[in-house]
Amino acid sequence: MYGLLGRIKAVAGQRDALVALLLEGTGEMPGCLSYIVAKDNDDPDAIWVTEVWGSRESHQASLQLPAVRAVIPRARPLIAGFDNRHETEPVGGIGLPA
Amino acid sequence: MYGLLGRIKAVAGQRDALVALLLEGTGEMPGCLSYIVAKDNDDPDAIWVTEVWGSRESHQASLQLPAVRAVIPRARPLIAGFDNRHETEPVGGIGLPA
Repeated sequence: MYGLLGRIKAVAGQRDALVALLLEGTGEMPGCLSYIVAKDNDDPDAIWVTEVWGSRESHQASLQLPAVRAVIPRARPLIAGFDNRHETEPVGGIGLPA
Repeated sequence: MYGLLGRIKAVAGQRDALVALLLEGTGEMPGCLSYIVAKDNDDPDAIWVTEVWGSRESHQASLQLPAVRAVIPRARPLIAGFDNRHETEPVGGIGLPA
């Protein structure tokens, strides 16, 4: 498995709009095992996205999906920056397909 | 929903043992919607744990579960420290119960 986690800082006041866009892009993503969008409780502009994919390749391929490509230019003006980006190897737990 | 994410640094050479213990403690946790254990790709001692619970209370209650309480004293000597702890409000995505 391949994992990604990171924080997105929204432009002030645009977090909810950005959250909605991020969720809109996640309809059909082959190989995506988990993709959770969460608001940071301590920063009113910050969003955490935590992802688990079957492989690094399935994540890469998702970036070419029409639904994902359609969201990117709409999301960009709402994003102030990214930080805390980490690549991981998920090992197991709850909330992944058996 | 209530979310937690954070990084655990294992004592050098003990990451795999600590991962196994963390997964052992996750058998039956009422209200736990997602609990994913992942190895950091850039730090051979680091583990990310990302959690989603139905509520803050269900997370609190889990700390009293016998299986969780049994794991804590066994895990402690394998842990060098914690960092990057963040509380979140998960909003949706893939890998959560509908």
